[in-house]
Amino acid sequence: MLKTHNCGELRLAHIDQSVTLCGWVQRVRDKGALLFVDLRDRYGVTQLVAREGETAPELIERIRNLGREFVLQAQGKVVERASKNPEMPTGNIEIELIQLDILNASKTPPFTIEDETDGGEELRMKYRYLDLRRNIVRKNLELRHRLNRETRQYLDSQEFIEVETPVLIKSTPEGARDFVVPSRMNEGQFYALPQSPQTFKQLLMVSGFDRYYQIVKCFRDEDLRADRQPEFTQIDCEMTFVNQEDILNTFEGMIKHLFKTVKDIDLEDFPRMTFADAMKFYGSDKPDIRFEMKFVELNEIAQNKGFKVFDDAQLVAGICAKGCAEYTRKQLDELTDWVKRPQIGAKGLVYVKCNADGTFKSSVDKFFAEEDLKTWATALQAEPGDLLLVLSGDTDKVRKQLGELRLEMGSRLGLRDKNVFSPLWVIDFPLLEWDEDSQRWYAMHHPFTSPKTEDIPLVEAGKLGEVRANAYDMVMNGVELGGGSIRIYQRPMQEKMLSILGFSDEEARNQFGFLMDAFEFGAPPHGGIAFGFDRLCSMFGGADSIRDFIAFPKNNSGRDVMLDSPSAISEEQLKELAIGLRK
Amino acid sequence: MLKTHNCGELRLAHIDQSVTLCGWVQRVRDKGALLFVDLRDRYGVTQLVAREGETAPELIERIRNLGREFVLQAQGKVVERASKNPEMPTGNIEIELIQLDILNASKTPPFTIEDETDGGEELRMKYRYLDLRRNIVRKNLELRHRLNRETRQYLDSQEFIEVETPVLIKSTPEGARDFVVPSRMNEGQFYALPQSPQTFKQLLMVSGFDRYYQIVKCFRDEDLRADRQPEFTQIDCEMTFVNQEDILNTFEGMIKHLFKTVKDIDLEDFPRMTFADAMKFYGSDKPDIRFEMKFVELNEIAQNKGFKVFDDAQLVAGICAKGCAEYTRKQLDELTDWVKRPQIGAKGLVYVKCNADGTFKSSVDKFFAEEDLKTWATALQAEPGDLLLVLSGDTDKVRKQLGELRLEMGSRLGLRDKNVFSPLWVIDFPLLEWDEDSQRWYAMHHPFTSPKTEDIPLVEAGKLGEVRANAYDMVMNGVELGGGSIRIYQRPMQEKMLSILGFSDEEARNQFGFLMDAFEFGAPPHGGIAFGFDRLCSMFGGADSIRDFIAFPKNNSGRDVMLDSPSAISEEQLKELAIGLRK
Repeated sequence: MLKTHNCGELRLAHIDQSVTLCGWVQRVRDKGALLFVDLRDRYGVTQLVAREGETAPELIERIRNLGREFVLQAQGKVVERASKNPEMPTGNIEIELIQLDILNASKTPPFTIEDETDGGEELRMKYRYLDLRRNIVRKNLELRHRLNRETRQYLDSQEFIEVETPVLIKSTPEGARDFVVPSRMNEGQFYALPQSPQTFKQLLMVSGFDRYYQIVKCFRDEDLRADRQPEFTQIDCEMTFVNQEDILNTFEGMIKHLFKTVKDIDLEDFPRMTFADAMKFYGSDKPDIRFEMKFVELNEIAQNKGFKVFDDAQLVAGICAKGCAEYTRKQLDELTDWVKRPQIGAKGLVYVKCNADGTFKSSVDKFFAEEDLKTWATALQAEPGDLLLVLSGDTDKVRKQLGELRLEMGSRLGLRDKNVFSPLWVIDFPLLEWDEDSQRWYAMHHPFTSPKTEDIPLVEAGKLGEVRANAYDMVMNGVELGGGSIRIYQRPMQEKMLSILGFSDEEARNQFGFLMDAFEFGAPPHGGIAFGFDRLCSMFGGADSIRDFIAFPKNNSGRDVMLDSPSAISEEQLKELAIGLRK
Repeated sequence: MLKTHNCGELRLAHIDQSVTLCGWVQRVRDKGALLFVDLRDRYGVTQLVAREGETAPELIERIRNLGREFVLQAQGKVVERASKNPEMPTGNIEIELIQLDILNASKTPPFTIEDETDGGEELRMKYRYLDLRRNIVRKNLELRHRLNRETRQYLDSQEFIEVETPVLIKSTPEGARDFVVPSRMNEGQFYALPQSPQTFKQLLMVSGFDRYYQIVKCFRDEDLRADRQPEFTQIDCEMTFVNQEDILNTFEGMIKHLFKTVKDIDLEDFPRMTFADAMKFYGSDKPDIRFEMKFVELNEIAQNKGFKVFDDAQLVAGICAKGCAEYTRKQLDELTDWVKRPQIGAKGLVYVKCNADGTFKSSVDKFFAEEDLKTWATALQAEPGDLLLVLSGDTDKVRKQLGELRLEMGSRLGLRDKNVFSPLWVIDFPLLEWDEDSQRWYAMHHPFTSPKTEDIPLVEAGKLGEVRANAYDMVMNGVELGGGSIRIYQRPMQEKMLSILGFSDEEARNQFGFLMDAFEFGAPPHGGIAFGFDRLCSMFGGADSIRDFIAFPKNNSGRDVMLDSPSAISEEQLKELAIGLRK
């Protein structure tokens, strides 16, 4: 080794030892007679010191010529500091320099290598290798490593086996777009990159692997929204001879294990909520239950009082914002504008102030008596000082809009603390959803999800919208961490499902024939779950974006600006692959 | 859970317990009054028993209709067996059936689910999910899991951090062919799949990650030889502030850890051999040193005796095959034919029998006196009863041919025991090799490998063929398990290297600009290694082929015959990607 210790480990116990450190120049301080160099590596920072008159003059000269981010090998003696720095783990000691070699120089970095950097996103991504030098970014990746380790630790303890499934697979048109890979050896044919190892893990269950996991890269060629990446990592799991309850317990256990070991937080048992309740009370299939503010439906008490907007509405529903009765006219106007933005799309906002003196003041005083408003307040369990916010219209839209408003009010009221973690299982998802545009049914989860046994008669009866699936999502703080289902494991049901989803017999055979064949050779009941690992890391890191938990992320156009990729390839390469570019 | 226990865990201690098992029918034995079902899962086999007159008749009827590989849920009482089976871990008990449900039926599998199956390779691959049900195949993947676990265990204990590097990267023409991925969002441009995370791990060192590892899929679009896969898994590692010695010790430690924990074998310290010696004494850069049989060069004693074949040869070299003097004429002819096969390519084979009576008999008695042959025997340390085998010709060819012959004789003499493990470091590889066909230099390892400091003057002097690299391979039993190098970390040397390899300045900048830029911002000295994980698994499993250590391998045409992939994609997909097929 070029060093005897790292830059984070020396303490008073090392006093008088002769040591060699390697690292990067964080800072040089030239006090005239005294020179200090802060030397940094992954493990910490150690102060080097040189003294005019004591240290060799050429060494002092060398220090005076150091720049930020120079790579040094420093040899010296550990001494106790005169003025200690209790903020630094190595703050009790410093190294009296005896020898100093520059292993590599550095140009001035395009941005500062500090937690608070002056570099913008684009610049940081172009020089990602320098961005990764920042403590704050490196710590994210260390957290990711830790979570990866503890995930494996837990799953291993539960007898799961990691099995690697292939990356070069077969393209299937269901779901998002596949990335494809032209095959040189099989001219005119393409592999696809997996959107998930779904069918493979099911085959492993057919093979009797019993408990499978994999922490695995998956790929989706989607138009990228702010926080999506074309390649992402999944914790992918599957179990045999289980029912839904077993899976929920096993993976609730996993998340509890991660919180305990990585953050020393004991999570309580996760509450469960049906999809129907999640939509009814929170307007979302991934409710943020760090705070209450549940929807209350007001149709019975607010309709037929002569307010046409409500009377024509499918749903009138409100939330109670605690302590907001003091909102000014300006604040209420601003909130009304907020819900009317195209992203939310509400037509208007009805408010009721529950004044401290027991009176009520609303934006619909013309239509409702104080007594009416009082019944609303009672329904919404409001107290004097609270503000009621009411939306009306088409049920699905109101729920969505009120859900957004609820989150907004939660944020404004400081109810969404990043250090509070409120997990939740959402269960009993619908099996299918109807798409008006394409006039067909889509699988809400995926085509391999089984209907609830008691709802199978509804499938037979063609009441497809009412069929519930054995599907579940794990939600935390309003974010979906993972989701899964108990699978279909018998050929006739799988055929039926593919037919409902619009597959012809031939298409079904062509794309999923291998899976349906497998179901005929003793397929066991099985089910599983997959967690978005990038998302899980950002949740643990208390961040909104997944990008800083990925070493080399791509931008919103799917580009790696550091590599300048994707890029053109040579005509020769295209020719070998038997493909050409279209104009 | 649909079961209370698995099929491998019940013992006498469970007697009288009521249990529920799930699994597959391995076998049904109908003895008339007694019926037995062997129920199998990943954990073992348990015997179920039903008794005519005791067990419910409809249950007996159900058993009589069971087929192989049916999936059952069986409920019953654990009882002690009358006739125990000491071969089975569960052989002391059986389950007296109370309830039996068929969870899924099975068609008759196309081959038997036994260690020794009647299925051929092609059939087994088409129904890989059934092949994976065989104990012997599943155990290979369990071994793989174990090795994966212990690799992480070791590297973690050494403060390595796993960092995931991207799969969608940039195509570079150096080395093997890339698989490419058309980008829909960046029309006319392509990602490439990584042949290794080489440049990324070097960037992580520039970032100060200090110790990195990843168990990662890599891709090479090569014409596939018997034991190559287009996608394969690598244990990829890199370290900062190290010299070669540190890397050898760290990863020798890793392999020792794996042998100790997975096979309970204590490996001794690995010997080291220069590339030059490996070629001189074994004719291979990956010598199998489970047995001696080193080459001895005979030029000095065998040339200039009037045998033109030897006199014209650049090299005359032989090996000593212990105890083979009794080889018959037929055996020797067969061996001569063997070395003359096109795969070996020798012109002929000279043999000398060192007879038990101290006399010598050779195929070149016309040219050499018994005294000459005796000097050969002495040089080769032969004893009476041994057989000398001698080849001559062009040095490189003779070494290669004699290397093959040595391995063949080693196999024939039973010296290559799969349960003996002889590791070895081969060091001091040449930096460059000259290719006659393309009249240019190629990097023997890769373009990022550094020359030995003491050989840098040879680079300057243009004596490129003599420059040794800081490169090393770990070899075991004649197989390369891994290889790596100390890297270049300064821009001028990297530019020089790329220029030697025929890159124009523009090509170098275009393809590796990001790396050379990174070297200017304080790149530390670093080096690393990568192990072929599939190969490592097959070595531990005592198998020659890697295929049975991969869950879903591809065949020699790069096809997945189970999925029938690669396959055609729709015109619509091609259009979206802005590519077309060539006729």
